Order: sequence, then C-alpha cells, then structure tokens
Amino acid sequence: MPPRKIIIDTDPGQDDAVAILLALAAPELQVLGITTVAGNVPLALTARNARVICELAGRPDIFVFAGADRPLQRTLVTAEHVHGKTGLDGIALPEPRMPLQDAHAVDFIVQTLRDEPPGAVTVCTLGPLTNIAMALQKAPDIAERIAAIVLMGGAYFEVGNITPAAEFNIYVDPEAAHKVFASGIDLTVMPLDVTHKALTTETHLQAFRDMGTRVGDAVAAWTDFFERFDKEKYATPGAPLHDPCVIAYLLRPDLFSGRHVNVEIELHSALTRGMTVADWWGVTPRRPNAMFMGDVDADGFFALLAERIGTL
Amino acid sequence: MPPRKIIIDTDPGQDDAVAILLALAAPELQVLGITTVAGNVPLALTARNARVICELAGRPDIFVFAGADRPLQRTLVTAEHVHGKTGLDGIALPEPRMPLQDAHAVDFIVQTLRDEPPGAVTVCTLGPLTNIAMALQKAPDIAERIAAIVLMGGAYFEVGNITPAAEFNIYVDPEAAHKVFASGIDLTVMPLDVTHKALTTETHLQAFRDMGTRVGDAVAAWTDFFERFDKEKYATPGAPLHDPCVIAYLLRPDLFSGRHVNVEIELHSALTRGMTVADWWGVTPRRPNAMFMGDVDADGFFALLAERIGTL
Amino acid sequence: MPPRKIIIDTDPGQDDAVAILLALAAPELQVLGITTVAGNVPLALTARNARVICELAGRPDIFVFAGADRPLQRTLVTAEHVHGKTGLDGIALPEPRMPLQDAHAVDFIVQTLRDEPPGAVTVCTLGPLTNIAMALQKAPDIAERIAAIVLMGGAYFEVGNITPAAEFNIYVDPEAAHKVFASGIDLTVMPLDVTHKALTTETHLQAFRDMGTRVGDAVAAWTDFFERFDKEKYATPGAPLHDPCVIAYLLRPDLFSGRHVNVEIELHSALTRGMTVADWWGVTPRRPNAMFMGDVDADGFFALLAERIGTL
Amino acid sequence: MPPRKIIIDTDPGQDDAVAILLALAAPELQVLGITTVAGNVPLALTARNARVICELAGRPDIFVFAGADRPLQRTLVTAEHVHGKTGLDGIALPEPRMPLQDAHAVDFIVQTLRDEPPGAVTVCTLGPLTNIAMALQKAPDIAERIAAIVLMGGAYFEVGNITPAAEFNIYVDPEAAHKVFASGIDLTVMPLDVTHKALTTETHLQAFRDMGTRVGDAVAAWTDFFERFDKEKYATPGAPLHDPCVIAYLLRPDLFSGRHVNVEIELHSALTRGMTVADWWGVTPRRPNAMFMGDVDADGFFALLAERIGTL
Repeated sequence: MPPRKIIIDTDPGQDDAVAILLALAAPELQVLGITTVAGNVPLALTARNARVICELAGRPDIFVFAGADRPLQRTLVTAEHVHGKTGLDGIALPEPRMPLQDAHAVDFIVQTLRDEPPGAVTVCTLGPLTNIAMALQKAPDIAERIAAIVLMGGAYFEVGNITPAAEFNIYVDPEAAHKVFASGIDLTVMPLDVTHKALTTETHLQAFRDMGTRVGDAVAAWTDFFERFDKEKYATPGAPLHDPCVIAYLLRPDLFSGRHVNVEIELHSALTRGMTVADWWGVTPRRPNAMFMGDVDADGFFALLAERIGTL
Repeated sequence: MPPRKIIIDTDPGQDDAVAILLALAAPELQVLGITTVAGNVPLALTARNARVICELAGRPDIFVFAGADRPLQRTLVTAEHVHGKTGLDGIALPEPRMPLQDAHAVDFIVQTLRDEPPGAVTVCTLGPLTNIAMALQKAPDIAERIAAIVLMGGAYFEVGNITPAAEFNIYVDPEAAHKVFASGIDLTVMPLDVTHKALTTETHLQAFRDMGTRVGDAVAAWTDFFERFDKEKYATPGAPLHDPCVIAYLLRPDLFSGRHVNVEIELHSALTRGMTVADWWGVTPRRPNAMFMGDVDADGFFALLAERIGTL
Repeated sequence: MPPRKIIIDTDPGQDDAVAILLALAAPELQVLGITTVAGNVPLALTARNARVICELAGRPDIFVFAGADRPLQRTLVTAEHVHGKTGLDGIALPEPRMPLQDAHAVDFIVQTLRDEPPGAVTVCTLGPLTNIAMALQKAPDIAERIAAIVLMGGAYFEVGNITPAAEFNIYVDPEAAHKVFASGIDLTVMPLDVTHKALTTETHLQAFRDMGTRVGDAVAAWTDFFERFDKEKYATPGAPLHDPCVIAYLLRPDLFSGRHVNVEIELHSALTRGMTVADWWGVTPRRPNAMFMGDVDADGFFALLAERIGTL
Repeated sequence: MPPRKIIIDTDPGQDDAVAILLALAAPELQVLGITTVAGNVPLALTARNARVICELAGRPDIFVFAGADRPLQRTLVTAEHVHGKTGLDGIALPEPRMPLQDAHAVDFIVQTLRDEPPGAVTVCTLGPLTNIAMALQKAPDIAERIAAIVLMGGAYFEVGNITPAAEFNIYVDPEAAHKVFASGIDLTVMPLDVTHKALTTETHLQAFRDMGTRVGDAVAAWTDFFERFDKEKYATPGAPLHDPCVIAYLLRPDLFSGRHVNVEIELHSALTRGMTVADWWGVTPRRPNAMFMGDVDADGFFALLAERIGTL
C-alpha cells in the first residue's frame, strides 16, 4: 500500500514537534508539506521551528510554508507561558538552513488539493485552524477533495485550558474552527479529553533519553520543559502530549475511541468563546459533524511514539 | 445549640422531595417555610407537591408559599421527561389538605430575612433561582442578611444535562442565577460534578423499602421512577440524587469537598446559555464568588439519608 | 365622562416634572399614584423629587411610592450630566413634607391593577421600565388588566442619545423593556423621533415666565437648565421636552402620528444594548407590538402645555 | 496630473453598473481592474455582469476577476427582490465575450497593491467587503499600501434597508466589514444617509434617455427597473442611486459632507447584525476610524452623472 499523503498544519510548539517527528518517522505517511500558522508563538517562529524540526529529523527536503500571521477576526493570543519564548524551549538547536517556500500556505494547500486526486490528501492540524478556514473560503471546492481532517483541539469534559471554557487552539481562532466544523469535511477531533489521558512519565522520558540519538535527546528535553507547566497546574506526575495524538491516530486508529457527535463552536460570548460544545449525550437534534475522541490507550500510544521516534 | 433556620426554595420533583424529607427529619434544622417556583414542573404542581411532601412527613404545619410561575426573562422549560407529569410520579399520594399561604413566596423570603437577625437564615435552593433573584431585586438589603445560600445547580466537568453546556436549574433561569452569583452572598454550589457521584443503587433502594414506612416506600418508589431516565441516558447502574446533597451539606459538610472559585453564568449565547463557567484551575483574574463542590463521600451521603429518612 | 385613571412611573428629572405637572393640571386624568424608579438620578432622589413636584402643584395628597433602586440585571447608569446633581437642578424648591408611602411601588402597581376593574388603569412611564417589569414578573395576571402603557423611550431614526444606538430609558434597563414589549399589553411609544421634534424655544420659556406663578417659574427654570445640554450637543436652538409627550398623548392623541410596528429590544450586544429596533418599513415577519410614534404637532403640543400648566 | 489609480470591487447590480460606467467615463481615474464578489446576486452573475458593463462602455480591455462566492462566516444573502434575477434586469444586453481573468480577485488585489507604490491605489467597494477582508487577512502589509477605501455601505439615521437595523452590503458580510473598519485604512463611507438623498427623478431618467446612446438607454432602463422597489417601499418619487456616490466622491468630493467618527460593526446580535454604529454625536471615547458621509448635493451629483455618462 502506498503511503497516505498528508499536509501538516502546525504552530510548533514542543508537542507539535514530536508530532512532526512521528509523521516523518512513519513510512505509512508521505508528508506533502508543512504549513505554519500563528498560535503557540508568532508566525515567524512557527515557520522557523517547523524547519528546525525537519532538519533535526534529517529531512531538509520537506516543503515548509508560512501562512496566517493572525486569526481571522481576533487579536492573536500566544502561549509562551507554556512553550517558552521560542516555542521550542528546552534544548538549543541550530537555526535552520533549509528555505521557507515562497508561496503562501493557503495557496499551497489549495493547489495541492486540486492537483491530487479527490480523497487523496488528509490534512492534520496541530494549531489554530486559520489556514484551513482561509483555504476553504478562497477555494470552497477543496472541501470535497480533502479525505479527512484530523485535528488537535477542543474539549468537552476537560472543558478548557486557556480559559475555563476553551482549549487553546480553538480559542485562538474560533471563527476558523467554526468554518471547519461547518464544512461537511470528515473530521476527527483529539480534544483535551484524550490528550489529558496521554500524560508523559519519567519512564517515558527516560526511554527517549536512552535512545542515545539527537532526536531522542530533543524529545526528552522538550517534554521535560513542556511538562513543567501542566505538572504544576494540574498537580499531575506528567503532562499531556497533545499534538502527537493526531499523527498516532493515522498510524493506529485502534488506540482511540470516541463518539460521532455534533460539535458547535462558541463564537459570540466573551465568557465561553472558543468552547467546543459537543453533544456527547445526544440531547439535541443537531446533526453529528465530527468524530470526537474521548479515550486513548496511553500505554499503546507511548509505545508507538518510542518505537517510531527511535528510528530517526 | 438551637437548630439552624432555613428556607427551602424548591420545584419538586422527586429528588427535591427527598431533600425536603431529609430537612424535616433533621432536628439540627428548623424549616421556616418552603417557597415554590416553576421548574421541573409548572408552579401549580410544585406548590401542590411541596404540600404533598409535608403531609407525607406528618408536617402539615409547615408554611408553603407559591412564587414565580416563570423565569425572569425566558420562556419556562420544564422536565416532565425526567420527573413525570406530576413531578412526583412513581407513587400515588393523597391531594394535600394543608393550605397554600396567601403571600407571594418572594414577600415571605424578604419579610423573614428582615424579621430574623442578620445571619440567622440560610436559604437552600433546589430549583431555578427565580424567587431568590426577585427577592434580591425587590429588597437588595437582604443580601447582607442571608447567612448563606446552598444551592443545587450547575456543572463544570459534567458540563450539562438539559443541553450539552448547561444544567437544568441554571438553564431555566440564567438571569436569576447570574443575579445570585453576583450578589456577594456566601454561596455553596452542588453541581452535577457532585450529584453524579451520588448515584442510587439497588441496595440503597432496598434500604428505603426495608424501612417499612410510608415515607420509605415513597422514597423508594420515587427514586425507582426517577432513576430510569438517567440510567438509560448514562448507562449507569443508578441515578443521581441531586437535591438532597444541599440538605446533606448542612448536616454533614465534611462529606463534601470542592474549591472556592469564580463562577460566571453564561447569559448571552444560545449555544451555551446557562453554563456555569467555573474557574476551577484558576486561569482567570476573576474573584472567587462560590464554594463549588466537586466530590462527595457517596457512602456517607447515602448512610445519612437512610438514617434520617428512617426516622420519619 | 369620568377622568381616566393613571399611574405615573417616573424618575424625575426636569422633563418628568413637567409631565407630572401636566397630568396634575388635567381634569381628564386621575392620578392614582406616582411610583418612582432609579434612572435619571438614584431612587432616593427620584422618590424625593416626585414629592417636591406634587407639593409645587399643590397636591400633597398624591400617593408617592419608591420602587426599584437598580435595573433588573445591569448596574445603574444615571444622567446627572443632563439633569444636574439633584435631577431637578435649575431652581431651588423646598424639601417635601408629604410622606413617601410604605409599600413598594411594585406592590402598589399590582394591587391597584387588581383592585380596579380590568382595563380601567393606564400606566404612564417616564423612566426605565424596571418597576413595570417587576410587577409583570410578580403578577403576570396584571398584563390583561392594564388598559395601556404609554411610555417615553427608544428611538428609531434618531437612534440614540446615551450611546450611538440607544436612548437612555431603554438603555438603563433593556431587560425590563424587553419584558414590557413582549407582554402583549397595548403599548404607545414616544421615542426620540417624536421628542426631538418638540424643542423648546425662547418664546416657549417666556410663556412660562409670563404666567407669573411659582409653577410657571419652575418650568421655565427647569427647561432653561435642561436645554443647555441638548443645545450644546445638537447645536439646536432648543431642547427636547421628552416626557410631557406621554401625558400630552393622553389628552390630545391627535397631535401625534406613528406606525403600529414590531419593536424588539437589543439585549445581548454591548455595542447596541438597549436599541429599540423598530420595523418601521415592515421588512420582517415579526408581529407588531407597539404604536411607535414618529411625529408630533409641536406647536399644538406647546400650546397644550402652556394652557394646562398655566392653570396650576 | 496623472489619473488616480483605482480598483473597483463590486457585485453588479444596476447601481453598481452606473458607478462602473461613471468610473470608465472619467479621465481622472484609471481602473486597474474590477474585482467581483457575491452580493446582490451570486458570484457567477456578478463576474458576468461586470464584463457586460465593460463591453457596454466599449472597454473589453478592463481586467475583471472573480473573488469570493460567499461571505467569510455567513450564508450568502442576495437581493434579487431589488435587482431582478440577473442583477442587471431592465434591459437585455449581450453575453460578454471578454474573458474573466484566471487569478482570484484577492490575489489580484494583493499583487497590485504590492506592485504599485505605497499610496498609489484607491479601492472603491460597491458590495460586501469579503474580498477586501480576505486580502487583508492574507497580506496584512497591504493595509499600509492602500491610499484609501471609498465604500458604499451602512447607515446611521437611515438605520437599515435589508433589516430594520442594517444596510445590505454590511449585513451580508459583517465580519468582513469589521475587518475593514478595524484596519486603520483611510475610509470614506457612503451610507444610506447619503444615498437616500440622491433620488432619481423622471427628469433624470429623461436626461439619460435623451443621450440617444446605448449607454444612456441602459442607464435609464436600469434605473427605471431598480427604482420600482424603493418607490414602492418608501413612497418616494424616485429611488436612491447608491453606488455611483462612491465614484462621484472621487471626482467631486466637494459634493459630499460628513463627519470623521468612530464606526463599529455589530457582529454578535441576530437582531442588529451588520449595523454600522456611527458615533455621530461623539458620545463615546472610541477613536474615529471613518469619514462617514451624511449629505450630498443631489443636483450636483446628478449633473455630474449625466455629464460623464453622456460621454460614453
């Protein structure tokens, strides 16, 4: 079977970095390009960081594009309090030498989806959905050409992280999220409900350190840095590795379980802006529009992660 | 120590009934009056049901008042799908012969709080907060005279029951809830997060049946009726007994634990209307305004319930 | 024909004062009571001012009641920048000696409407609609007993005065206004569209001064004080006398013209809160719920005012 | 002086057509391109109609681009009840033979603004602001390169036409309008307050007919068709010619007067969505962001129109 073609839209971020490494390590996947967006840190840094990660993985051939430097309607909110000033704090890595592509990320997404056969490309999003919404606005025809979108974002029982009611990726650009959730595209969502069940432990970190590779060292260092925030906030022994769940799902969907339900995005209230209101209990007549994951086999997930990252 | 003076504001409802019975069975409490409100069923039924319950408990001397027949701003939503047509479905009980008092519930609340010494009266609410908000609007001075409000309502990690984002009591009259949560009164909240941890079991029901009293039979029959809805929806072996948590808290506060946090009520969005946005993780600068309970010792709770109800 | 029975709900205010004087001067009207509300100035002052005005008119027998000291949901906004610190700035008048009645304004309104035959009492409102909404909430049966409500408030083509989108009376308590406009009661609205066409002139003021009465002097002094604000803001030679339009309509409905249209109150947006969205052009399917006045015979209005005020 | 370079963004529409003709007739203006958007009629028709108009004017050399086929967030609302099924109902004109350009309108706008010197290009918008908002989102740098935007849209004292609170162009895509009004670009707004003062009369129509040209005939026929809607609705002897005010302003700014004020767009309320809340009276501390026109010398405007259209 030929590898599955994917575009990764991302705002790295340490956990984005681990997700990208996992994708690059997977022979089942062909990364057509990486598109970057403002989110965890500003666009200039996410466009840089994506290339830092590719070079770390020994893949300077990957096409990296810069996209939106701000949400559709809102002022950009970033998360340096979690990810550090660069977004990849935790280990010093060389500035990238591979080029940033000239085209705008949105144009790359549109062109690729039009060039590839319908249903050939899966879009994996690890940050705010700004680029995807812009692509859908400019080229509505692509909605029918995307095989699926697998995205990290939202929460139901975990409710929120950046505010009491909203998860960061959706909060940053709720209008973009609304457009994606209303698009009719096949959606699989990895919300906090899943990612908060995939907590790193000292054992996991040690496994990465024991690889004795630059990649293993980086993953351990990033995770070590990244966890400090969540460990303190939630008083848990580890921290969630959010974004790798998206790539792990492509490789091992059996590790995840959820419900196909309606998910609406709160746009209008300042109090609840960016909430992903999932009709988990089926109490409304609203049409299901997303596979909303609720659980993960955490051991299986970390075993997959270690196994694949170990090959880089 | 003299008994603690309470007013119970309620919309019975089977679980309200158990709460009222628990209060009437407790020598630690003096029920100054029961005020009724439209909620689970319309006002005419809640005003009737409150008296049915008092008579069942052998307390036709209790003052019962009718209050608001509708929310402050919204069209009334009721919950016959949970509570049955009468609100007390499950067992046939005689029509009450004790009178409904002439005064409006709101005037009774205001007058009582002005007549009693400041800090003498605790208000326990088991339904929508309409009457309390009306009292606060008419007589703002009572805010400083209420000892505390202990209320069943809202949810954080359990999010919602009547909609994906809201619990019934708050959803029915979010404007009233907002007024109460903004009042500065000492608030203790029993949300779904607590009540969904106090699930009835067949053992519990049997304990009530084994009492061999009319009250025990009624509680068993009501619970049996009431549970069917939640057991089906949540696929749990029992159902939450929401409202008795409020009275149990007055008797055994040590059974409950929670956090003193900010809770805001969503008023403006149709999607999330009535949500209790609790800043459980302390991610906002908003001032704490409520003790928001999160856990209960369920065994202790049911033991208390059986012990006290058994005395009636 | 016996005089028409009215209740005046008011927040005086110089223009409220002129309206009250007009009512007291009119043998066609029987003022059953004056109820006061927080609005132009706080409740303590409006309850005082109403009595100052009654005594000026030689009517210390009028029942005056204090009502709501705050809007249903919002923080009170007042308008001392227009009316001065007391609300009746412009002339020094003695402190009132007539009593404020004990009952709450809302209870007076409810009791009067229940005591009088259905359709016997017209309610005239000159301020925020808080008291009326509270009465409707406490006693929904009165909606069918009120003959009509004639109110000063709102705007369509004049849009707003306190904000770019809202008139003061409605802005202060939009939730109360919503309740009144949704009540099904026969409503006649005097918006800024009308009152901005009833501008005082030096000739009008001189007519009041020429009466040679205490009342005439007071009206001239109030108007002189009051107009300074609007003359400066709108660069007009005079200022609108808002509230007397309500009473003038009872005496001479032929002076006013308008359309029976749907009027909705904006509740949810901070930007447009309190706007009276009138479907003047009939572009929606919404049911008409108010006679929304648009024009006034200003000369006839001022002639009526001078003639009647001159009798006091 | 070299002609002023403009881009016309439009959704023709008969009045758009007259505006385009006026621009093509003006030696003071150089039309760099015409970009089309969904609005009065769907995109396929506006992209066609723009070319019909160019060919009518003898200008098949003009570059015409298709842009957004839908608003940023909302479902498209069109206005065939005003403009007829084609958008250019009133006279039969041949299908265009000139090509539609391949590039997306948004890319043309971005590229042109980047290719031309800063401050060289004025953007004239006659429809919903979708394309402009998309360009600003994709290429935020263009905000500083646009000389000015002159737009038809909004209303203050005229309040609304498509709803009681909103004008059509802004109502169709309020999020796009918000982005433009928040952009910091030099904005001049021609609201209904102006355009409803530029009503066509039989004399004006006759002047077009008397030209004895195909263009004159078309303008007369379009206006005749277009007027019927407004004449019936407003009971006026003529109808507003909205869009030509934008081009007329470029040629004769002295014909128009207004105020430099803050204008905010209502996004959140269903009732008032798309309202342009103009702080005409300066009652808020909000920063002015637009020259909001309020009056026009209608005779001068129609004289200009007749004189220039007569040259085609």
